[in-house]
Amino acid sequence: MEFSSKLLENAVNEMSQLPGIGKRTALRLVLHLLKQPEQQSQKLASALLQMRESINFCSNCHNISDTQLCKICANPRRDEKLVCVVEDIRDVMAIENTSQYRGHYHVLGGKISPMDGVGPGDLTIVSLVEKIKIGNISELIFALSSTMEGDTTNFYIYKQIEPYNITTTTIARGISVGDELEYADEVTLGRSILHRIPFESSLKSL
Amino acid sequence: MEFSSKLLENAVNEMSQLPGIGKRTALRLVLHLLKQPEQQSQKLASALLQMRESINFCSNCHNISDTQLCKICANPRRDEKLVCVVEDIRDVMAIENTSQYRGHYHVLGGKISPMDGVGPGDLTIVSLVEKIKIGNISELIFALSSTMEGDTTNFYIYKQIEPYNITTTTIARGISVGDELEYADEVTLGRSILHRIPFESSLKSL
Ligand SMILES: [Zn+2]
Ligand SMILES: [Zn+2]
Repeated sequence: MEFSSKLLENAVNEMSQLPGIGKRTALRLVLHLLKQPEQQSQKLASALLQMRESINFCSNCHNISDTQLCKICANPRRDEKLVCVVEDIRDVMAIENTSQYRGHYHVLGGKISPMDGVGPGDLTIVSLVEKIKIGNISELIFALSSTMEGDTTNFYIYKQIEPYNITTTTIARGISVGDELEYADEVTLGRSILHRIPFESSLKSL
Repeated sequence: MEFSSKLLENAVNEMSQLPGIGKRTALRLVLHLLKQPEQQSQKLASALLQMRESINFCSNCHNISDTQLCKICANPRRDEKLVCVVEDIRDVMAIENTSQYRGHYHVLGGKISPMDGVGPGDLTIVSLVEKIKIGNISELIFALSSTMEGDTTNFYIYKQIEPYNITTTTIARGISVGDELEYADEVTLGRSILHRIPFESSLKSL
């Protein structure tokens, strides 16, 4: 792509550093900003800068938070003994959205992935083990995505906390509610059958 | 979507103002920036601000340019009597990319579209007619997209310049080079047959 303006080229190049944004898309976005009032670009730029400079993480669960302790950790009506281990804030938002969970979270900040250069030390595992060591947690729910990296991370943590003898569970995997069996993938369907639950339990969640 | 941080929410909201970027995508982009060194957000923000504040348009063809006259208009080896009318800089880049055109451009900055509140006065039509009036153009090539808006804009300009008796042409529409006839849409195929060219001419472009 050859540009008639260095300023334009520079903006397109920076924009296309974002994941999933190619040069063509970046050009489209940047030309859009040129057609909008200057104020829109200023608001975007300052929102990104302010966020990047001042972002804070909850000292207990490591979720993104504007306060030292996030709203969930600060809420006395939530069960701090029950902790759900997730990868990032999007998982917290997704689970909160269900209104089915009243425990705490522990945000790892990623998954162990040697391919991407992410080791256990890059995640918040030490602080999780610390909380368990001092007896603050009775049940740990693993809710990482069920990929090679997710399974590796689960197992690594599991081994670390084995000595402390707390309950560990993992979220149920199976056919989505409302899905036709014939269209489900084999692995998911297999797990659905293997991890079947008492029929009475399924009635409770209706 | 409920956010645990106002800073994060603000950044996601501004990012999702961009066309085609929903809240979910905006969150993904913003979380990516949080994982990158702070410098990347700073470079993106300042590239956007600098572009928006200092962008300049060629005084002759209205293309985006860092200089008063763009490289194409300033090039003495290009034919200034031949002018191709396009919607925006992406069309200029696409045509330049073919290396088949040695004339000038005139960048309208959009198409007439009452639905989007774009009238003739919002485009650079007056300056185009002015160039024609003073006898600077011998042939005008219409290269807008063949939509309702494109056709309307072409016709509006055509009517404005009718008194000055210059040659007006439009780029050829037809089956893409290499495409199978059976998969082409009817309108395109119809135009391909209607606007057939002498066989000898097709040999020249090989
Ligand atoms: Zn917290
Ligand atoms: Zn120019």
